[in-house]
Amino acid sequence: MIRLGILGYGNLGRGVEKAVMHTTDVKLCAVFTRRDPSKLSIATAGVPVYSADDLAAHKDDIDVLILCGGSANDLPVQTPEAAKLFNVVDSFDTHARVPEHFANVDAAAKASGKVGIISIGWDPGLFSLMRLYSNAVLPEGSDYTFWGRGVSQGHSDAIRRIEGVKDARQYTVPVSAALEKVRNGENPTLTTREKHTRECYVVAEEGADKAKIENAIKTMPNYFADYDTTVNFISEEELKAKHNAIPHGGSVIRTGTTGDGSNKHVIEFSLKLDSNPEFTSSVLVAFARAAYRLNSEGVTGCKTIFDIPPAYLIDKSGEDIRAHML
Amino acid sequence: MIRLGILGYGNLGRGVEKAVMHTTDVKLCAVFTRRDPSKLSIATAGVPVYSADDLAAHKDDIDVLILCGGSANDLPVQTPEAAKLFNVVDSFDTHARVPEHFANVDAAAKASGKVGIISIGWDPGLFSLMRLYSNAVLPEGSDYTFWGRGVSQGHSDAIRRIEGVKDARQYTVPVSAALEKVRNGENPTLTTREKHTRECYVVAEEGADKAKIENAIKTMPNYFADYDTTVNFISEEELKAKHNAIPHGGSVIRTGTTGDGSNKHVIEFSLKLDSNPEFTSSVLVAFARAAYRLNSEGVTGCKTIFDIPPAYLIDKSGEDIRAHML
Repeated sequence: MIRLGILGYGNLGRGVEKAVMHTTDVKLCAVFTRRDPSKLSIATAGVPVYSADDLAAHKDDIDVLILCGGSANDLPVQTPEAAKLFNVVDSFDTHARVPEHFANVDAAAKASGKVGIISIGWDPGLFSLMRLYSNAVLPEGSDYTFWGRGVSQGHSDAIRRIEGVKDARQYTVPVSAALEKVRNGENPTLTTREKHTRECYVVAEEGADKAKIENAIKTMPNYFADYDTTVNFISEEELKAKHNAIPHGGSVIRTGTTGDGSNKHVIEFSLKLDSNPEFTSSVLVAFARAAYRLNSEGVTGCKTIFDIPPAYLIDKSGEDIRAHML
Repeated sequence: MIRLGILGYGNLGRGVEKAVMHTTDVKLCAVFTRRDPSKLSIATAGVPVYSADDLAAHKDDIDVLILCGGSANDLPVQTPEAAKLFNVVDSFDTHARVPEHFANVDAAAKASGKVGIISIGWDPGLFSLMRLYSNAVLPEGSDYTFWGRGVSQGHSDAIRRIEGVKDARQYTVPVSAALEKVRNGENPTLTTREKHTRECYVVAEEGADKAKIENAIKTMPNYFADYDTTVNFISEEELKAKHNAIPHGGSVIRTGTTGDGSNKHVIEFSLKLDSNPEFTSSVLVAFARAAYRLNSEGVTGCKTIFDIPPAYLIDKSGEDIRAHML
């Protein structure tokens, strides 16, 4: 059994805990939290809860630690630190900062002799994979990624970190006319702004400066500045009543040609997810299995989804997958 | 530059030749044929054509040989033989015989110190990958694969090998009611027969026993016996006029749940291909790149698409793909 630890017990951490229950080869052995461990009640009976400060004390009890914090502030610090002690997997999703994060995790994991797999989930993650595979097999063509309609955890989290914000949900919405053009093979040139809009539902703290919050959201680099963003201030009750679910989805599409250009091809990968964090967590657990196996073979350092042989992700033998999935 | 050879200059071989023209790191260095080499005219100027009997004489001139023969009779013999001399890639698609073919190629490639990648294309191939990834990330669920409407090269080839058949096209057709049920998340249990029908257009040799041909098709194990198959005998002229293109496509769908089962997810990968052989060839060339790279790192033996780290497929650096595709 692969001994798994979770750092951070929010939506993603709880999702990982649930995903482990659907495996036969992974066992949850510890949850680490920055809250008071004695006050954290978790779903799995018999699993200890420790302080996030005590990671080092459990160095030999955990094979892989899944980091379930946010990309804005948590993971850039936590993942390299944890990679000094454990094989680690995270869902770092700030695309612009990936090179820096990769370098930091790589240095830590190489020094400790561990494997760190970063940016796992569905985007970055499965969608990244589809971009790579479709580019590799169809070198002449155009790439399109559409997200939603769905709640982006990363973007909601970014809003929540703004001063005066009590809670928030951000929906990413594809512009349907653009999506249709792509599927019809019209090969349109689309700006970031033409592909998606962003809808924000924000609960402000009592007395907060709403205009300042709205401006902070709309001008936030990487997250909102390049989109048409609408900000709606609502009550906490309305947020809970109408925006409690966390659905998401989207499509990665590559259209291109082979030969002399007369034969057209469309490659599409799409997801429709009732729960973004539960699905993301389920992906994280599959890559925790891969991290453990790679490290067991002597591999060390930082890896992304591009580096992982697919067979390492599943709890079946080579003979089995060749016989039943090939 | 990766020095590529092609064995077999039919639809697939010509597709590989065209696919190489869209790469920057692969160079076509030889075409091998079982026909008279002096009578074979190929599209690329300056590339020599040799007899398939002379493979061994060019052992040191070719880095990877792509085998472009049929799965029924050619590849089971050719791929293990060629793996004694070169890194090889094939598109072996007789699912039931994969374990045997894998073992034969593995033994040959390990003895020669080469890599052999088998069963590459889109199914087996990209569709196999999607089955593996979607099972790994969504362990609770059901798998569905729908093909078509499109021409199956393997099935057309199988018909052509029947005595008395001059030429043939086989269309695989998904049963649309079944496809709709799956996409709606109804999770139906479907037999092979309920998912697809097979339409055959056959040109018989003068004086051939058509009833015998029809029976041979409909009772052929693995290929037709488990399907509702219709056989239409047509003239050679009609075949050329109406069935000259080789389109294909299909969808791999996995529907499943996470957590306590209340959150549903749908993962779908679909292809719409104007030319099945050109697309398949383009996939083969990407895996030829991977075969070369793996062997350059000392890897030997038989591999499938499940064993190849995605990054090995594309002519870009790790930094580049992390920055632009992740």
